Amino acid sequence: MLIVMKPDATPDEVGRVLEIIEHLGFRPHTMPGASRTAIGITGNRGAVDPAHFENLPGVADAIRVTKPYKLISRDLRPERSVIKVGNATIGGDELAIIAGPCAVETVDQVFSAAEAVAKSGARFFRGGAFKPRTSPYAFQGKGEDGLRILAEVRDRFGLNIVTEAMDERGVDLVERYGDCIQIGARNMQNFSLLKYVGRTRKPVLLKRGLSATLDEFLLAAEYVMSEGNYDVILCERGIRTFADHARNTMDLSIVPAVHRLTHLPIIVDPSHGTGRNYMVNPLARAGVAVGADGLIIEIHPCPEEALCDGAQALTLEQYSELYEQVKAIHAVVGEQSLVAAEA
Amino acid sequence: MLIVMKPDATPDEVGRVLEIIEHLGFRPHTMPGASRTAIGITGNRGAVDPAHFENLPGVADAIRVTKPYKLISRDLRPERSVIKVGNATIGGDELAIIAGPCAVETVDQVFSAAEAVAKSGARFFRGGAFKPRTSPYAFQGKGEDGLRILAEVRDRFGLNIVTEAMDERGVDLVERYGDCIQIGARNMQNFSLLKYVGRTRKPVLLKRGLSATLDEFLLAAEYVMSEGNYDVILCERGIRTFADHARNTMDLSIVPAVHRLTHLPIIVDPSHGTGRNYMVNPLARAGVAVGADGLIIEIHPCPEEALCDGAQALTLEQYSELYEQVKAIHAVVGEQSLVAAEA
Amino acid sequence: MLIVMKPDATPDEVGRVLEIIEHLGFRPHTMPGASRTAIGITGNRGAVDPAHFENLPGVADAIRVTKPYKLISRDLRPERSVIKVGNATIGGDELAIIAGPCAVETVDQVFSAAEAVAKSGARFFRGGAFKPRTSPYAFQGKGEDGLRILAEVRDRFGLNIVTEAMDERGVDLVERYGDCIQIGARNMQNFSLLKYVGRTRKPVLLKRGLSATLDEFLLAAEYVMSEGNYDVILCERGIRTFADHARNTMDLSIVPAVHRLTHLPIIVDPSHGTGRNYMVNPLARAGVAVGADGLIIEIHPCPEEALCDGAQALTLEQYSELYEQVKAIHAVVGEQSLVAAEA
Amino acid sequence: MLIVMKPDATPDEVGRVLEIIEHLGFRPHTMPGASRTAIGITGNRGAVDPAHFENLPGVADAIRVTKPYKLISRDLRPERSVIKVGNATIGGDELAIIAGPCAVETVDQVFSAAEAVAKSGARFFRGGAFKPRTSPYAFQGKGEDGLRILAEVRDRFGLNIVTEAMDERGVDLVERYGDCIQIGARNMQNFSLLKYVGRTRKPVLLKRGLSATLDEFLLAAEYVMSEGNYDVILCERGIRTFADHARNTMDLSIVPAVHRLTHLPIIVDPSHGTGRNYMVNPLARAGVAVGADGLIIEIHPCPEEALCDGAQALTLEQYSELYEQVKAIHAVVGEQSLVAAEA
Repeated sequence: MLIVMKPDATPDEVGRVLEIIEHLGFRPHTMPGASRTAIGITGNRGAVDPAHFENLPGVADAIRVTKPYKLISRDLRPERSVIKVGNATIGGDELAIIAGPCAVETVDQVFSAAEAVAKSGARFFRGGAFKPRTSPYAFQGKGEDGLRILAEVRDRFGLNIVTEAMDERGVDLVERYGDCIQIGARNMQNFSLLKYVGRTRKPVLLKRGLSATLDEFLLAAEYVMSEGNYDVILCERGIRTFADHARNTMDLSIVPAVHRLTHLPIIVDPSHGTGRNYMVNPLARAGVAVGADGLIIEIHPCPEEALCDGAQALTLEQYSELYEQVKAIHAVVGEQSLVAAEA
Repeated sequence: MLIVMKPDATPDEVGRVLEIIEHLGFRPHTMPGASRTAIGITGNRGAVDPAHFENLPGVADAIRVTKPYKLISRDLRPERSVIKVGNATIGGDELAIIAGPCAVETVDQVFSAAEAVAKSGARFFRGGAFKPRTSPYAFQGKGEDGLRILAEVRDRFGLNIVTEAMDERGVDLVERYGDCIQIGARNMQNFSLLKYVGRTRKPVLLKRGLSATLDEFLLAAEYVMSEGNYDVILCERGIRTFADHARNTMDLSIVPAVHRLTHLPIIVDPSHGTGRNYMVNPLARAGVAVGADGLIIEIHPCPEEALCDGAQALTLEQYSELYEQVKAIHAVVGEQSLVAAEA
Repeated sequence: MLIVMKPDATPDEVGRVLEIIEHLGFRPHTMPGASRTAIGITGNRGAVDPAHFENLPGVADAIRVTKPYKLISRDLRPERSVIKVGNATIGGDELAIIAGPCAVETVDQVFSAAEAVAKSGARFFRGGAFKPRTSPYAFQGKGEDGLRILAEVRDRFGLNIVTEAMDERGVDLVERYGDCIQIGARNMQNFSLLKYVGRTRKPVLLKRGLSATLDEFLLAAEYVMSEGNYDVILCERGIRTFADHARNTMDLSIVPAVHRLTHLPIIVDPSHGTGRNYMVNPLARAGVAVGADGLIIEIHPCPEEALCDGAQALTLEQYSELYEQVKAIHAVVGEQSLVAAEA
Repeated sequence: MLIVMKPDATPDEVGRVLEIIEHLGFRPHTMPGASRTAIGITGNRGAVDPAHFENLPGVADAIRVTKPYKLISRDLRPERSVIKVGNATIGGDELAIIAGPCAVETVDQVFSAAEAVAKSGARFFRGGAFKPRTSPYAFQGKGEDGLRILAEVRDRFGLNIVTEAMDERGVDLVERYGDCIQIGARNMQNFSLLKYVGRTRKPVLLKRGLSATLDEFLLAAEYVMSEGNYDVILCERGIRTFADHARNTMDLSIVPAVHRLTHLPIIVDPSHGTGRNYMVNPLARAGVAVGADGLIIEIHPCPEEALCDGAQALTLEQYSELYEQVKAIHAVVGEQSLVAAEA
């Protein structure tokens, strides 16, 4: 914390601030400047609440310095985490591709998609049994029946199942039937749910909230980890901005930022990130080029009949084209990173 | 739904669209224009999913027309709803003032605040027993002990208690101890929780999510109402934008928009909406002037010692000054609305 | 400037930073903390460029402390500026109302509007002769002919003319015919134009850019003032956000922020700020309640025939209703400010 | 334009709308629906102003359908434009790399950078002689002296010069000394300047405004083209959002959107788009992977001594590493596009 005094702050006002800092058990460092005095604070273990100072007479500003996270930080664990999901991993050298339909609808639909995913060489299958829908009148997912179909996909196609839970009952079910519990963007700051999945033994795919800053996103991961579950995979899925040519704005610069600050893997979701079929492949390529550890992609054997989000689902052919392209780009980026790591 | 064809769409492509519309059981209305054809759709009861059309050959755009909400709409209920909360109401002629500390900390702190609130003439008391905090290491609230203190406030000061629940266990407790269940901004699209409070018998104060559009906000209310609980009070508490001079950006134009579309009351929260002590009073005045049905305000007997959000809490004196000012403005606005309603 | 070192920064890396600070002629203040070292910088007259430090080895962050403005600051001039515009003022005790059509179209249209404005008691008339339009194919204004009509309005109705200039030729003409040069939101960072109006002798109404932060807005004013023209009136006219129920989002919290930091007056524009007829009056009331020094309002004798922005223009009756309401609210706020100032 | 009536609109109110449509010379198409009537409008050549209808009794909404641009559209010119800039091109099969310092400072600085750019194989050199700076007290560029240095770079290194003009005098000078006139983000809606460069004979690099929608961006290009200069290159340089881990948020989905709607080339600027040295390379890779026609990159022989934007400038080594990486990715994307184009 740095306290910046107003130019006309009196010595008494400065003194009051010093007193409070010491009263809180911290150590003040006074820096008299040409036009104003600043006071640094050390000795604090975590973040200091600016509220102690902001409204005091003579104080112009109280600026946070210490970052509020611990377990996600590379300061704590410098090497990158590789998360085991079923019989595969996310965060290592291999690009993780998670593909499947938005919602589980029928056995036929799911199996056609799963066949295409398995054939491509991807190791993960997605599909929603519980669907967070903006309207209460929209299709809400097939629930446990949907999860049973997904479990069959694992048995039959050898794919690891990533699927969303929206509440505690859902978490219990996904823990039973799936391999990775997805927490959706709208629940990124559902702190009770974050703590609950923090007490499970399955890895968690945590999607960034529509208006989450980097710090908030990382602290949501910290919530999960602070309960003992360290297997968190982050996912950028587009943020809400004024731009209206896509459903959301993909914020790819968060990928290098996450890699710089944390040891956690991060994947990107160009399907929700754009909401437009024709943008999914270009943004998937961009996501891999920027350095993401994987992709999550919506596909559907027949997008125009999808019960949800059909506008963004790729056909099975479009998916296999995407798969080839991102693998080629990953090969280029992988080589370069190797070189960079050696340098 | 309106389907806009590309200028070079072939008759076959137009035909395919017409076919699909009829196949879905709707009625197409072809409008050949100078440069392109548009096709209107009628006969649908709810919203039509644009995904059926967006990626078809020859289609330029699929534009939504029908609004997706029902129960919140003034089309359904033209007169304004007045919601009973304990022994008072929100949504009628009287301005509803809800005041109290961010978090319940101690009996002394709560009772000092409650005394000031009761003395001012306000009818509602706020105070958090469960606190949604960005960091898992921040103070998380006193839980049921805090709720017991709030229940004492009702008994002793005759104030109606508005307090937040973050999960189902919390809802059960708030239902027992409080008068109005607050759903926080971060849970505005926690659809499981919305349905759960939709099955309680207590009124719900629903805060707008940080990046919620008007439609999403109204559909969150629709979630609660679709389960049978019609007593929903909306609350604007600031949205997330690029602006950095306040913690959030208060979007006061949502107040007339809500009043135009719905029969529900809406209040505003200038404490979270600005996050700055010196802005709370001006924005509270603005909220009343724009036509809000009430205010929710954070106060603290000693803001610099608050365990959370002290930077925005008003002192008890600042609160009583605010109270006088907003009452005077409400008197002016109230007279004018009367005149307008008569005209 | 505060330099925050990484927890694992070596003494050499800290030394390098100290060296550079001294090399730049500033004074470093080292603050060793529990987990990391921070280094304050004093002795600088203006802002220090963080680029000197951000990419140095061992540096985690470089945080700006000093504000980059001078002339607009209350540190320089504690009392509020009252700006003379023609024969009236903006920034004093009286609420300044500027009303008129978006664009000057015909003598009849302008004179009907001007009559209503004069009759209401307002002192300022607006009307665009040069119109910044998103499309090159939209009506671009009547140019000098339009300005001549505005000059007649001054002669005939005694109103002071506020009108926009988009380039240097326009500034020369507005300086000749008008009383106040408006710089539109899209030109808020047209620095060449800001300097040019800084060399005129007419007051400048500077509208906030659609995505301007408070600092950028104030520095735009600083551009004008740094050339010698101190008569700047700021104007909040809505910012661009994700919210889609209004054309822009009015950011009223900027009014107290401007009053706290600067001595300049600030008015609000609820017409462009909302873009919706039915929202103009409520947001005008809110603008006055929040403490703005005035309003700028679009009116039109026949809005549905307006050549631009008809959707937001008030009819003459709606305008006179608004005028009464905001005067009543201003009376309330004015009294309260007096009380507050005395306290 | 589609007019949506309220459910309770009377036949008279519908009749009034029909009348106005016919009065404007357009053709109405009535579509009676289950709960409300919609009225399509055809026969209009350009966009119809919703203001004619929005405030009429019985009207719920007026929805725009026709896009307001012409010359930029692929409807007009289906094949992609390849723009000649000096002795090279932008928009064809080759990836265009524009590199150089933010600002022209000294001959040495510029020549060191130019040598590295020429050696890499890039064909374009950037460098600012006129700098749009947020503060009037920041370095404003070397003006014509700077342009002379840039002209020497062309002579000596055979690079084509891209440099910014901020006003008409600047345009005249850049036209004389440079090969491509850059219009900065802050001037994207400086319509007078857009028209002025529309009357020059040099190609224009048009940067997207910080809060420009796709439509506004394309209409800014349309402004230039409507004056007769068809050589416009678009540039995505990051938009303003709430995200605070980078200086701006790069909106890469605009690249496929631009390619779908227009025949113009679009490049991306990861230097301004991120403002952080360590993000430039990853986002440059992403920009090429998403399909951009080129990149514009800030480099500096000694970034920590740069007079502006040093925090984002690459060193010459970092630049040459970036160059290799993006060429490799472009080779992959190029092959794939070929395949896609054949399919």
